[in-house]
Amino acid sequence: MAASPYDGALRAGLFGDAEVAAALGDAATLAAMLRFEGALAAVQGRLGLIPMAAAEVIAEASGGVVLDPAQIAPGVAQNAITAPSLVAAFREHLTTDVAPYVHWGATSQDVADTALVLQLRPVLALLEGRIGAVLRALANQAEAHRATVMAARTWSRMATPTTLGAKIAVWGAPLLRQRQRLAELRPRLLVLSLAGASGTNAAMGPKARQVAEGLAAELDLGLAPLPWHASRDTMAELGGWLALTTGSLGKMAGDITALGQTEVAEVTVAAAGSSSTMPHKANPVLAETVVALARQNASLVGALHQAMLHGQERDGAAWMQEWLTLPPMLIAAGAALRHAVALAETLAAAPERMRANIAATQDLMLAEAATFALAAHMPRPEAQALVKTACQRVGTEGRPLRTLLAEETTMPIDWDQVFDPAGYIGEAPAIADAFVREVRETLP
Amino acid sequence: MAASPYDGALRAGLFGDAEVAAALGDAATLAAMLRFEGALAAVQGRLGLIPMAAAEVIAEASGGVVLDPAQIAPGVAQNAITAPSLVAAFREHLTTDVAPYVHWGATSQDVADTALVLQLRPVLALLEGRIGAVLRALANQAEAHRATVMAARTWSRMATPTTLGAKIAVWGAPLLRQRQRLAELRPRLLVLSLAGASGTNAAMGPKARQVAEGLAAELDLGLAPLPWHASRDTMAELGGWLALTTGSLGKMAGDITALGQTEVAEVTVAAAGSSSTMPHKANPVLAETVVALARQNASLVGALHQAMLHGQERDGAAWMQEWLTLPPMLIAAGAALRHAVALAETLAAAPERMRANIAATQDLMLAEAATFALAAHMPRPEAQALVKTACQRVGTEGRPLRTLLAEETTMPIDWDQVFDPAGYIGEAPAIADAFVREVRETLP
Amino acid sequence: MAASPYDGALRAGLFGDAEVAAALGDAATLAAMLRFEGALAAVQGRLGLIPMAAAEVIAEASGGVVLDPAQIAPGVAQNAITAPSLVAAFREHLTTDVAPYVHWGATSQDVADTALVLQLRPVLALLEGRIGAVLRALANQAEAHRATVMAARTWSRMATPTTLGAKIAVWGAPLLRQRQRLAELRPRLLVLSLAGASGTNAAMGPKARQVAEGLAAELDLGLAPLPWHASRDTMAELGGWLALTTGSLGKMAGDITALGQTEVAEVTVAAAGSSSTMPHKANPVLAETVVALARQNASLVGALHQAMLHGQERDGAAWMQEWLTLPPMLIAAGAALRHAVALAETLAAAPERMRANIAATQDLMLAEAATFALAAHMPRPEAQALVKTACQRVGTEGRPLRTLLAEETTMPIDWDQVFDPAGYIGEAPAIADAFVREVRETLP
Amino acid sequence: MAASPYDGALRAGLFGDAEVAAALGDAATLAAMLRFEGALAAVQGRLGLIPMAAAEVIAEASGGVVLDPAQIAPGVAQNAITAPSLVAAFREHLTTDVAPYVHWGATSQDVADTALVLQLRPVLALLEGRIGAVLRALANQAEAHRATVMAARTWSRMATPTTLGAKIAVWGAPLLRQRQRLAELRPRLLVLSLAGASGTNAAMGPKARQVAEGLAAELDLGLAPLPWHASRDTMAELGGWLALTTGSLGKMAGDITALGQTEVAEVTVAAAGSSSTMPHKANPVLAETVVALARQNASLVGALHQAMLHGQERDGAAWMQEWLTLPPMLIAAGAALRHAVALAETLAAAPERMRANIAATQDLMLAEAATFALAAHMPRPEAQALVKTACQRVGTEGRPLRTLLAEETTMPIDWDQVFDPAGYIGEAPAIADAFVREVRETLP
Repeated sequence: MAASPYDGALRAGLFGDAEVAAALGDAATLAAMLRFEGALAAVQGRLGLIPMAAAEVIAEASGGVVLDPAQIAPGVAQNAITAPSLVAAFREHLTTDVAPYVHWGATSQDVADTALVLQLRPVLALLEGRIGAVLRALANQAEAHRATVMAARTWSRMATPTTLGAKIAVWGAPLLRQRQRLAELRPRLLVLSLAGASGTNAAMGPKARQVAEGLAAELDLGLAPLPWHASRDTMAELGGWLALTTGSLGKMAGDITALGQTEVAEVTVAAAGSSSTMPHKANPVLAETVVALARQNASLVGALHQAMLHGQERDGAAWMQEWLTLPPMLIAAGAALRHAVALAETLAAAPERMRANIAATQDLMLAEAATFALAAHMPRPEAQALVKTACQRVGTEGRPLRTLLAEETTMPIDWDQVFDPAGYIGEAPAIADAFVREVRETLP
Repeated sequence: MAASPYDGALRAGLFGDAEVAAALGDAATLAAMLRFEGALAAVQGRLGLIPMAAAEVIAEASGGVVLDPAQIAPGVAQNAITAPSLVAAFREHLTTDVAPYVHWGATSQDVADTALVLQLRPVLALLEGRIGAVLRALANQAEAHRATVMAARTWSRMATPTTLGAKIAVWGAPLLRQRQRLAELRPRLLVLSLAGASGTNAAMGPKARQVAEGLAAELDLGLAPLPWHASRDTMAELGGWLALTTGSLGKMAGDITALGQTEVAEVTVAAAGSSSTMPHKANPVLAETVVALARQNASLVGALHQAMLHGQERDGAAWMQEWLTLPPMLIAAGAALRHAVALAETLAAAPERMRANIAATQDLMLAEAATFALAAHMPRPEAQALVKTACQRVGTEGRPLRTLLAEETTMPIDWDQVFDPAGYIGEAPAIADAFVREVRETLP
Repeated sequence: MAASPYDGALRAGLFGDAEVAAALGDAATLAAMLRFEGALAAVQGRLGLIPMAAAEVIAEASGGVVLDPAQIAPGVAQNAITAPSLVAAFREHLTTDVAPYVHWGATSQDVADTALVLQLRPVLALLEGRIGAVLRALANQAEAHRATVMAARTWSRMATPTTLGAKIAVWGAPLLRQRQRLAELRPRLLVLSLAGASGTNAAMGPKARQVAEGLAAELDLGLAPLPWHASRDTMAELGGWLALTTGSLGKMAGDITALGQTEVAEVTVAAAGSSSTMPHKANPVLAETVVALARQNASLVGALHQAMLHGQERDGAAWMQEWLTLPPMLIAAGAALRHAVALAETLAAAPERMRANIAATQDLMLAEAATFALAAHMPRPEAQALVKTACQRVGTEGRPLRTLLAEETTMPIDWDQVFDPAGYIGEAPAIADAFVREVRETLP
Repeated sequence: MAASPYDGALRAGLFGDAEVAAALGDAATLAAMLRFEGALAAVQGRLGLIPMAAAEVIAEASGGVVLDPAQIAPGVAQNAITAPSLVAAFREHLTTDVAPYVHWGATSQDVADTALVLQLRPVLALLEGRIGAVLRALANQAEAHRATVMAARTWSRMATPTTLGAKIAVWGAPLLRQRQRLAELRPRLLVLSLAGASGTNAAMGPKARQVAEGLAAELDLGLAPLPWHASRDTMAELGGWLALTTGSLGKMAGDITALGQTEVAEVTVAAAGSSSTMPHKANPVLAETVVALARQNASLVGALHQAMLHGQERDGAAWMQEWLTLPPMLIAAGAALRHAVALAETLAAAPERMRANIAATQDLMLAEAATFALAAHMPRPEAQALVKTACQRVGTEGRPLRTLLAEETTMPIDWDQVFDPAGYIGEAPAIADAFVREVRETLP
């Protein structure tokens, strides 16, 4: 009876992610652990630590045996760690002359952490792929809307004009950095763990380093300079990366929700949700879900930092906190990216509404522009004070700012030109262009 | 493919809780929602809002129909809320003259929040029952060990003597308060939600308040004075209570782990975990799991406070954050309490080791007692300075404090009596007794 | 050089709170600790534990001596706890025959925790007073706007009509519960700590309980049934209450920000902020500050739950985490309440804009009402489908919903009446009234 | 009246950091903002946007004027942002022909964010320097104790032997990665912000990019490819780095606390804290403080991820959450590093006690070694079962494991050699060496 939000059938489409879940689920975990045991035996056979014949059988079997989680579970409930019952269950599939050589010299954490890393590898590739898909869709949108004039909003109030393309570029910028950060953290994270009972590989004997090198090569993993059983910074760093990913998407989704408000109505996205009672409602379900997932990962990330206070050579409680935290964060990142692709791809702009919203401010959106136009003829503080007073009159008198300023001033200023929103978008199109170029160059 | 730690088969025994999960799972959710719809129809029939015949059919069917989560899920993925597809699926089970009267005047949040409350009610009863079981076991232990002398530790250093019974009483004290807090929050939390599309019950018409009163009675729920669609303090309060519960257990579990350290060895609990490579290991798996769950709920509770920033009359993102947070917190509380019962019931003390650990300090544990003995004959600051100097000599000379003080002083002090740990336990037995009495009185 | 946001001069008006800070600052802390020592001596003198003459001198001096934090600080840096250097500094103000009797039988945590409780008492009174001020202002607003019709928004989209009074009532409802919760937690929190070095009061001797009773009476504090040195649930409960307070205010402030958006413009509040470059801007600074403080307390509350994992009889690290967390949370609550009073008192509605915003939806806001009007003449699902189709045509054709429905249907429905927002506000005025009544009754 | 834990005089030595606070305090903030304004004017003068003469005066004055925070504060309370009142106050120091050219075309966030970055630069250098000091001290210790045999502890129980040098290397490993991560994030973080009112630099005119390039060069900052007003990933990344730093130190400090427990007594550090009542106490105050600071930063980091949900072009509430979170995190990192240097430098080992603790386990610590010794003569599972049974007899019979195994088995095994802890430390010395080498190579 799945009761967690990520696994229940009811909300699987909102919060779940079938691909991430498959990569992290019980079957994948057991398979990754067996892969570790098989590769370990293969390397140890080659180095003469265990008989070559046994090594070959173990390596072969590790790829074929499928263990039943339900058989392993009671041992996990007893030991927390999976290795004791996994190794026992695996040995049942082997003859008695071969079975003893399974898990030779390794400790539970070696296989558990390495298996985790092996599972994380495809998940990160998957997430990276989806980041790419979001970026590509955003680049297409930014290109199309490089000069689509709309209001910028600061402090939740209309500020000055910008373009939708520039706005989209700002959404995408952190995702470009996320690709960079991922490239940086991968070699720290995707490393073998092989350090034995207490991090010294004492049971492995003098060839321990060779075994580690061989095993890392076999599993195509990096080799950390020092054992990391009790140094959990890479897991917290991963958590940070996941929360940065969802946080970036949450910003985009929040903006999409805000721009689609009934009173704003400047963008729409596909797949709106219905109400059970209000026929007119089209709720921004995907966008709100992304916001929820972003806030959730922001709430969870600290747990991994707490888990860095890992006691001595192995700390059960701290380690288990990682087990409790990483899967939901990874699934949330997967789901948020999936929804973000849909948002980015189906975003549709309403340029006429954007212009109407600007027009409805009676020129107030261009107050800064008026200040700078006047500042060519008078000191800027005076210009600013003059415009500010006129702005207040717009509210009380209901007349456009340009009318009031034209009445108040005598400078030879072309007020209609000053108050043309399209003339006051500054670098906005160039910002969109820079983003598009960056995406196209980094995502061939 | 369950991938979350609370639902996977592999770790179900560690982090999962079958009873809590059953109460929160998809089937229970759909059943609770149908129960709401059935009761609503029954009340509306009685009040003449819908035809009595239809009401009876709906009420009857609501208890019998079993909906398939997989059928509802696509609608949830579309709408986030379950009600539109639930109502549609339920209507398929009814004839066309009856079906329209399902969900009359209600909104999705009414049925969702009320169903949640209906599910929370038995979960809270379950958790309360387990708190009682922990308290009863602790009371038995506190009674048995009211005078079992052991070292207290402050700042992770041995301080002065106490008794195991007093220590256990301190573990239990917050759980007594948790029962009190639960009694206080229940009437705030277990209340009907029925406020319609925007919290005004406009569609329900002039009998709205009567419908609400009738429905609350039908479901045996309280009636909030004001609609709570957008006031989420009760959910955050519940989260706080859950984290207080697990935090209290985490303190106990952390102490049990510490007291069982190889070098301390003063208590043991049943069900120790094995290592995959070290034959002598007996890991405190249950205790460490409780610590992990406690830190996890401490990490999650803030998400519910974030969700209090619920926008306007209904905020999808904030509401979904509750859906993401509450189930793991409830399951974690359930699992932690289950493990805590086992810890409390199987705790076994090693009194001789407790005495030996005190003895190994060469009387340092009784340094404060020596100060007060001397302070009867000299100013206390001088006594404290004299004892402090002697304490430092214990470390360098390796001789017991009583020997050094007997040499240094001439007062007629019975040093062996002063340095008897059992003579310096103050109110410890009385503390244990007070706890036992309190438990026995409140948990008949 | 104050660098924290709560203490710096620059942002004192935003995030600081002079009254809360004064109650929590160094001087108040030292005074509260001296008060404990003075009252302890007085009680011990009466009970004959220390000479009455010394007791009187100590009690008298404790109220007059002012200690310099800078003199105490080096000792705090050394010991973390303040008591050793505070007691030493206090003794310097006393003659050598009296000085030794200061802090007799107590431990550092007794004086530290009791002093904290003594400081919390007026802070809670202050916060409660401000909650009252917010509630009174909201009640006045709710009364004035009980029937001020405006759009409700769900999922950030316009839903159906409500009134501003009902909305305000929903803001205030959790604050009413906060008063209730405060009354419940106070007797748990405001209790004496007096348990001695290891929680047993061994050094206090057989009259320990009498000392505790006398001291509690002297300080007008409650007496916990069991020592709470290591049971920190009351501190986490306090943190929860503070976060519930700010969370409730954050919801109100977020709504005020949203309702004041340029495109919505339905409410204003006093004290808007300026831009350094845009003359027309009036930023909702107070409201945004409250939101920031609310999210901050939501981020901090978990730290107090982490601190519940308090090791053994005293845990320096866990205890210090409380010292790091409680002051910012208390100050944030103070500042948020101060701003909330200003928001609640200066809130001004724009009823004509509210009506205009509803009108701009071309009747879509009343789509649910139309459904129920039709449902009197046809099955409700068919009515809902009919209205839904018409709603979509409103968007494409730009004609009001009432026009389309009048064309489509033949039922004798007075469409203008159906589409009058004021006729579809349900219980909204009653909700406002209920809130006003509740406030006036509980806050005489 | 400073009330926050980081600024109060009382606890300044514990939680405060004078150097970090000086870099972040009000005076430094105002100076950095003036520096921005001065450099901006200089660049704009060179590019002809403002008169060169005015530019020179502004640039010159920006380095000399000292503004009073108390004068600026009322404007901050009003506007939240500092720029409006800062610019006004600065202009008062200039003649009226020059004053208008201050802050030309920039927006408040440009100066605020750039000033923050200018303040962060020396703080990061300071923190990096302290990380280096910790690493150097740890390297010296690891070198000295490369072969100092001690017990490793897993799941809080003694596991197998290791060396203190290897343990220290594990403490240091994440700090080496922190240096690497800092190098990676610096170019993302230390970048100019110059984007104008809405992120388009519209007021700056066609030379906006040249102004940005010139200003970045003038301030020796990087230039982000896209405006980052509303992309706050770099701030959350910084927060993650700070929490990784303190988390790494917290692990070390927690281990030091644990190894210094009365019953373990394997290491000591300088500067122990006293009790107000127990003369024998020497509390690990510095280590516990580091743990508290680490858990605090772990609690705070999520706030910066929440703040990534930054609305539209500027979000006051989200931005303010950064102001509330970053200073305490930076100060906490500074204080934790300062204490960590002291811990690393003064750590003293008690090798004889380490050996005695191992010996006290009656050979159980070498149970794994015995298994592998036997596994040379029999299948390993059988060897493991045989040893496990013998381990249980050690507890009940009180005889050493080697004695029991010698009785039970007939293989030609040199049991004394097997049970020599120094013979079973595996790669521990090599691990220490690798760490020392790495530190010495990267920190010349």
